[in-house]
Amino acid sequence: MGAITPPSSILLSTMTERRLILFIATSLDGYIARRNEGIDWLFDDADYGYSEFYSQIDTVLMGRKTYELSMSLSDDPYPGCQIYVFSRSLTETADPAITVVQGNPALWVSQLKQQPGRNFWLVGGGQLVQQCLAADCLDELILSIHPILLGNGIPLFPSPFPEQRWQLVKTQSYPTGLLQCTYHRDRSVPSTEP
Amino acid sequence: MGAITPPSSILLSTMTERRLILFIATSLDGYIARRNEGIDWLFDDADYGYSEFYSQIDTVLMGRKTYELSMSLSDDPYPGCQIYVFSRSLTETADPAITVVQGNPALWVSQLKQQPGRNFWLVGGGQLVQQCLAADCLDELILSIHPILLGNGIPLFPSPFPEQRWQLVKTQSYPTGLLQCTYHRDRSVPSTEP
Repeated sequence: MGAITPPSSILLSTMTERRLILFIATSLDGYIARRNEGIDWLFDDADYGYSEFYSQIDTVLMGRKTYELSMSLSDDPYPGCQIYVFSRSLTETADPAITVVQGNPALWVSQLKQQPGRNFWLVGGGQLVQQCLAADCLDELILSIHPILLGNGIPLFPSPFPEQRWQLVKTQSYPTGLLQCTYHRDRSVPSTEP
Repeated sequence: MGAITPPSSILLSTMTERRLILFIATSLDGYIARRNEGIDWLFDDADYGYSEFYSQIDTVLMGRKTYELSMSLSDDPYPGCQIYVFSRSLTETADPAITVVQGNPALWVSQLKQQPGRNFWLVGGGQLVQQCLAADCLDELILSIHPILLGNGIPLFPSPFPEQRWQLVKTQSYPTGLLQCTYHRDRSVPSTEP
């Protein structure tokens, strides 16, 4: 019996597996917001790659606080995307584009990856990022590092979670001093407990 | 009476004021060492700009733990440099190149800047970095960001300290994924409490 060649659609599906991407802004000392949740220090004078990134996703995942902050800033913050809000306190919303999830984010990500579609944006915040890092289900980081030391705030990577190697695949600096770094998860090195 | 032109040596001295530089390696999540002080994750396969940097300094400042770690790794870790060790517990050493200081690091930096010489290297660790940030006496950051999330560890920038703007002046990426970023303190924007 000869070798079986899978149809090209299956090959394409394997080659373009949906990826969970953390696209997020951070201060140089690793905070996503001031202690009082203030984000007025973020540059808003340019797109900083957002439109290009947004065209590659169709699903957003976020914690409840990030969801409420997004809705307070815009009527339609994630146009065209399916929205998953991870929360222990919320139960449902009237909007069919929004799914409130109380379960394990990693399990949801794993199930969503089985379905066809584009990549997922892990919007934040820190607690959800920590859960995804603990489950090792984050595939890509796109960090927009702002040239500011806040001195205190809400951490991007709350400890603890198991140690992970990443690969630096791209850097881009902007005239404002914003430095955008893209990393891919390097799963060739085993993850170890911190 | 005509304008007085200072001699060129004074002009040169003003233009090249000694700078306090933090040249340090960090994980992507902002740790200088594991919780158990382990630094085995640091790349040691190349120089990563160290020799060029070292040629620009003649003075090193560090905390007691960093000093003891340095001495355990090398017999002569800072050749040709005057060494200042900030400590509440140490009192003196037999080595004339080493000065043990119990006072305010910012005051020492300010006094040293009045004397002629090259730049200062703030070697670490976190507690001394925090004191220097609190006193706003750091002039330059050269951060070697390693492509690893440690998940826990000893923070590079322990909170709190007043907010500070910086200018990104250079980035360099290496084949290993190490990203070296140079920032200069931007004192045009007032520092505010976090």
